[in-house]
Amino acid sequence: MVPVEEAVRSARAIAPAMATELVPIDLSSGRVLAGSITAAADIPGFNRSIVDGFAVRSRNTIGSGDGEPAHLTCRGRIAMGPGGKHYHLRDGECVYIPTGGILPEQADAVVMTEYAEETAGIVLVKKAVSPGENILLFDEDFRKGEVIFAAGRRLTPQDVGVLAACGYPHIPVAKRPVVGIISTGNELVPVTSTPSLGQVRDANASMLAAWLTEYGCIPVFFGIVKDERGALEEAIASALPACDLLLISGGSSKDERDITAGVIAARGEVLIHGIALAPGKPTIIGRIGGKPVFGLPGHPASAFVVLIAIVRPLIDRVLGIEQPHLRIVKATLAENIPSVRGREEYVRVRLEQGTVVPVFGKSGLLNTLVKSDGIVCIPAGSEGFEKGREVEVILW
Amino acid sequence: MVPVEEAVRSARAIAPAMATELVPIDLSSGRVLAGSITAAADIPGFNRSIVDGFAVRSRNTIGSGDGEPAHLTCRGRIAMGPGGKHYHLRDGECVYIPTGGILPEQADAVVMTEYAEETAGIVLVKKAVSPGENILLFDEDFRKGEVIFAAGRRLTPQDVGVLAACGYPHIPVAKRPVVGIISTGNELVPVTSTPSLGQVRDANASMLAAWLTEYGCIPVFFGIVKDERGALEEAIASALPACDLLLISGGSSKDERDITAGVIAARGEVLIHGIALAPGKPTIIGRIGGKPVFGLPGHPASAFVVLIAIVRPLIDRVLGIEQPHLRIVKATLAENIPSVRGREEYVRVRLEQGTVVPVFGKSGLLNTLVKSDGIVCIPAGSEGFEKGREVEVILW
Repeated sequence: MVPVEEAVRSARAIAPAMATELVPIDLSSGRVLAGSITAAADIPGFNRSIVDGFAVRSRNTIGSGDGEPAHLTCRGRIAMGPGGKHYHLRDGECVYIPTGGILPEQADAVVMTEYAEETAGIVLVKKAVSPGENILLFDEDFRKGEVIFAAGRRLTPQDVGVLAACGYPHIPVAKRPVVGIISTGNELVPVTSTPSLGQVRDANASMLAAWLTEYGCIPVFFGIVKDERGALEEAIASALPACDLLLISGGSSKDERDITAGVIAARGEVLIHGIALAPGKPTIIGRIGGKPVFGLPGHPASAFVVLIAIVRPLIDRVLGIEQPHLRIVKATLAENIPSVRGREEYVRVRLEQGTVVPVFGKSGLLNTLVKSDGIVCIPAGSEGFEKGREVEVILW
Repeated sequence: MVPVEEAVRSARAIAPAMATELVPIDLSSGRVLAGSITAAADIPGFNRSIVDGFAVRSRNTIGSGDGEPAHLTCRGRIAMGPGGKHYHLRDGECVYIPTGGILPEQADAVVMTEYAEETAGIVLVKKAVSPGENILLFDEDFRKGEVIFAAGRRLTPQDVGVLAACGYPHIPVAKRPVVGIISTGNELVPVTSTPSLGQVRDANASMLAAWLTEYGCIPVFFGIVKDERGALEEAIASALPACDLLLISGGSSKDERDITAGVIAARGEVLIHGIALAPGKPTIIGRIGGKPVFGLPGHPASAFVVLIAIVRPLIDRVLGIEQPHLRIVKATLAENIPSVRGREEYVRVRLEQGTVVPVFGKSGLLNTLVKSDGIVCIPAGSEGFEKGREVEVILW
């Protein structure tokens, strides 16, 4: 049994690198940048007003106020967009400018309409403005050549807005890794079947596929196979050429796990068999033909913890994510959580009125998984956390 | 100008209801349940072992320990899955059982292999077990008829695992609302164009589409239209029949907003024009032909805040989500945030080493949007928050 940290290191060390693909910007949200993005031009490309008002020379407004407004001659109205009339402002003059309008060259500030009054071609300015006020300067948002996003960033909708503003209709992202899923177990039947006595439906395949899709992978399910060496060998041989990595889920009993480990060892190598992690101890990390092959526990709750604790860091490496975007909340424990020293424990917890309530339950239960909001990790060296302690919850 | 709360109430009051559709389970993650899901059968459907070990009558192990093990006759090995040999245990007997195996009727506990030693058909039990130990009882996970998930829940990958275990190959979910997007502004050009002086690329359409997709809607872009009444009327008339709701983005200047409001008023009704929200004041909420029509600010950062603060609650109602799953983090302010009393302010913030750092910047800037991790809401009645205060950050 190896510590979690070592298992993660081993997993990441065998991560295959993904090729880059260009995707249309409208399909880029949630994808991971394969290269850094620099501003191809200055943004904005001209001095813009950020309010509706009057473009002025700020020195012409010095000392103006409600009681003593500055009087400026209004030259006209600037139209939005290109090709509008060009105004050359002299001292004592102003021009109406809408939000987003191009500031005339001689102006250096904008007086908001709220502080101006226009009558018969004269604008009364009731508040002084300083140079630069209410305008966005040329290149103030992004300077040409500046790195806007570094490689490895998972794009958000806001990022997509910035990429659009910067003129990137196609975005270089890491290809989605294809992750094969094989379910093993004589007791498993598909979701469409009614289990007879001793059978259970395969929950892991659907759960893993849903998570992998959400995380940016392409899951491919290669079916349920019996706990027999030959059947598993055949399934792996047919799955592997189509995948970048392979998850073999199931094998809850030692005999079954030994079959999985045996097949991986025969076709490639077993790197780790057993992790000091609860739940999730009977995890196998191996490699066949240069591709990572995982043996995950059969219990869905255990499989999910291994997915989060061990498989995710590998997928982060595959996608090029150096800093995964974990959602972590700090809150106070409402109950003691005992733990066994010597293994890292992932306790499912619920957030309840700002406190962290552990969701205890036997390892085979599904309901602990859906009644929890996330997990608290208790390090291997600890005998547990006491009530009242502030802990970090990694939200699902 | 109306308070944010009232604007949200008005928006939610005009939310159209979505029809239900059945989707295959493997496409259900992230979708919102349109009806509650009950367990169609007891889970598990039989008493199962949750460890590898020996099924026993617990009373036969009383008093057993390392020094004084109980001696039990091993009757054989239970196979995984259905159709295995049926064992009838008598006192003094046990049978090997793998994890997930069917517990024989007369057994009431399982001794883990770690505490048992088998030699020549005799098993030495070195640790007493109590009734129920290491087994999952019939219906302990979910009882037939029990509500597993209530309507309005957005399904997670773990939920999908449970739905698979419960035998739901198709899931009733709210249809994805079709959200039309129209960009307005004489200054706007598409992402594929190089702006000439006075032009900017349309960032909002791509940003809104990306967010809507992520939130479970189908965005449809109806193009960039000029700030002219006729052009906007035409665009709305062609978009509305295809949409459940419509977002008109742009109109950063008062003239432009007035055109949008005028067209909505002529074709339907303007419910709200101006919200006590910063940024986001010049927002329009209206309705045409029974469908919600929003006028969003032109600045991307402002449009995004309105999307989160006003449009999202409406979409939650459309999808049937009563309790949106906001990601909220509590942390301490690293700097003062001043605010103007009388309007709700959404300040973009960055999380830095557990503290909350406001990302200030002029309203037209894009970079504040992508340099922030979320927002802090300062209520209308407050003049701001002081450094050191614990605040809630709504993560993007």
